[in-house]
Amino acid sequence: MLLNEPRLLEHIADADLDAVVAAAPENVTYMSGFWALPQWIRRGPQTYVVWHAPGTGRPEIVASTSTLDLVADQQPWIPKVRRYGDFPVDVGDGIADDPVGRRHAELRNLPGYADPVLALVASLGDGDLVRGRVGIDEAGFLPADMQALRACLPDVTFVPASALLRSVRAVKTSEEIERLGCVARIAERSIQASLAIASEGVSELDLACAFHKQTIADGALPVLGCIGFGERSALMNVQPSTRKLRAGEVIRFDVGGRFRHYRADIARIACLGDPPAEALRLHRALQRGVEHACGIIRPGMAAAKLFEEVMAVVRREGIAHYQRDHVGHGIGLDGYDAPSLSSSSLERLEEGMVLCVETPYYQIGRWGLQVEDMLVVRRDGAERLMDTTGDLMVVS
Amino acid sequence: MLLNEPRLLEHIADADLDAVVAAAPENVTYMSGFWALPQWIRRGPQTYVVWHAPGTGRPEIVASTSTLDLVADQQPWIPKVRRYGDFPVDVGDGIADDPVGRRHAELRNLPGYADPVLALVASLGDGDLVRGRVGIDEAGFLPADMQALRACLPDVTFVPASALLRSVRAVKTSEEIERLGCVARIAERSIQASLAIASEGVSELDLACAFHKQTIADGALPVLGCIGFGERSALMNVQPSTRKLRAGEVIRFDVGGRFRHYRADIARIACLGDPPAEALRLHRALQRGVEHACGIIRPGMAAAKLFEEVMAVVRREGIAHYQRDHVGHGIGLDGYDAPSLSSSSLERLEEGMVLCVETPYYQIGRWGLQVEDMLVVRRDGAERLMDTTGDLMVVS
Repeated sequence: MLLNEPRLLEHIADADLDAVVAAAPENVTYMSGFWALPQWIRRGPQTYVVWHAPGTGRPEIVASTSTLDLVADQQPWIPKVRRYGDFPVDVGDGIADDPVGRRHAELRNLPGYADPVLALVASLGDGDLVRGRVGIDEAGFLPADMQALRACLPDVTFVPASALLRSVRAVKTSEEIERLGCVARIAERSIQASLAIASEGVSELDLACAFHKQTIADGALPVLGCIGFGERSALMNVQPSTRKLRAGEVIRFDVGGRFRHYRADIARIACLGDPPAEALRLHRALQRGVEHACGIIRPGMAAAKLFEEVMAVVRREGIAHYQRDHVGHGIGLDGYDAPSLSSSSLERLEEGMVLCVETPYYQIGRWGLQVEDMLVVRRDGAERLMDTTGDLMVVS
Repeated sequence: MLLNEPRLLEHIADADLDAVVAAAPENVTYMSGFWALPQWIRRGPQTYVVWHAPGTGRPEIVASTSTLDLVADQQPWIPKVRRYGDFPVDVGDGIADDPVGRRHAELRNLPGYADPVLALVASLGDGDLVRGRVGIDEAGFLPADMQALRACLPDVTFVPASALLRSVRAVKTSEEIERLGCVARIAERSIQASLAIASEGVSELDLACAFHKQTIADGALPVLGCIGFGERSALMNVQPSTRKLRAGEVIRFDVGGRFRHYRADIARIACLGDPPAEALRLHRALQRGVEHACGIIRPGMAAAKLFEEVMAVVRREGIAHYQRDHVGHGIGLDGYDAPSLSSSSLERLEEGMVLCVETPYYQIGRWGLQVEDMLVVRRDGAERLMDTTGDLMVVS
């Protein structure tokens, strides 16, 4: 299961909520296992998960009738579904031999609501929620729907809950960690595939194409990433262009992918031919920062303390004036899960968190260097999810 | 230019607005040409475009300091930028020979604001907008940011404008049409590449992999699509699985891609070996519906009229009880642009609209059949953006 149910219940109790409603795609998939295509590729289509406080009602999925085929096919762990809207389909011969089709037809026979808000109101009302405190994943709601919801349930106190759900998602289950490990290694292999064609005259776009093809071959989906040569590697968000690679230049990868809905975010540096001594020296300082993090990470450590430790190592090891807002973040269904590894973070590391630890350094006009690893916080320290080291790679 | 500026100004005047603020990624890119990676891959990061009514101020981009490298690299047609937040980088040797780096450094020297809302308030205030009517792309705002904005500008009347911007985007410029034509044909070639490996025993995932590899090779990015065999083709949103292809089975593609930020959405049916006569008959009715649309589309036609015409043809040609909510939609930066080709639509077709015309038909347990073409509304009728016909393809 993706959901860390004990943690969710703890958060619901701590916030004194009678129920919480997930609406953003990552929270819907996280809480229910239901992945609704339309809301993942566009903003607007609504899917909700309603989770009641213990003893006050069973969790429910609120889904458009046009997505019930996906409910039937995916069999999410929340069996209770409330549908809204119409979507005409016929039932044909062959349904007797088609369990997914049968389940789809069954779901279509559920009573339907005119729109998502009315279905949500009914779902809350069934749990007797016509007053009380309901956590709302506000980042996933359209303002007009939120207004309509308030109008339908004037005695309910709605509390913003996107941050609460983000905090629940921060500690991963074993299934989540497995998916994150897979996608981290797919991203590593995609870097290797990309470097396999690196030579003078190939373009950033050529490398991106090789990268994405490997990602696809490994069963994942490309997510836009950064691949830049030479001075373009200093652009933090560099998008692959027709710029051609020249001897002695740095190649910066800050890349990822999506595998069974889970994201990777890793960074590696390569050089075509012998790297300039200065690049090696700077890169080594950055790498030591990440390695130090891997050495000292423990459950209970303050994220801000980890930030200070990593910054101190990079400064001591060769970039005295190194400045960063953060040295990493969580990762999961979203590319930036909690915690944030920054000086202002109030979070503490917990067993089961999956982190991206990163130390990028950009010199405009010259180069960008970066090491970023994915790891799990285990009881006795960090377990890297990577097959490769963060060494600067020399391509000949 | 992507932006249809005369149409934007017309809409601003019709709605009696003093300014409009774009916030959703498709509206930001559309109005400015600026594509800000973080807001396209996650919800949360904020970028705005402020467009003042004529004579009251120049358009501005409000961007995070962490995305100024992309502003420098992309050179959007709106030159005025207001930045917020910090992002430490150094300036290295080589900047003299690096125009993008120089522009990046210049942009970093602009005065900075603490957060996106304060930058937006300053941008509106510079145009003297401390009262008046401001259109807000409400679907792209976080509720807390919207609250903060109202608190900063208590005398401004904020009017929801996401629908207005969607309407502006409905009539495409020639650059948009060119991109849409490219991506439509990339999707067609990807279907061909996918069918090239179709034989007994290959899986839906194998076909999806071949599809995506062609999309990548053609310079586009995969968007999740539907590829289903046999009874799975009847699942409207079918996601490729390990299900293996058998002789005589229908293969349904409802697929797309993204090329230079523009989306495709097309559908084709194939069959491994001779198709069942009934599938051919039903498919032919669906195809005639789309062909009829292509024949009668003209600027000025009511979208609801087009819907009725297409439904009537499909019913007459072989599916007497055919039911649909819509027979297509616009397409552009979003996969579902205006207009909607539905019975309840109040929109009229206009020259320059790009439409997906589609007639899907699903029989649970049996098969799903579908034809979907992309076309441009020209002065004298529809111009298809496709290289292939909608014929049912036989794979041997």
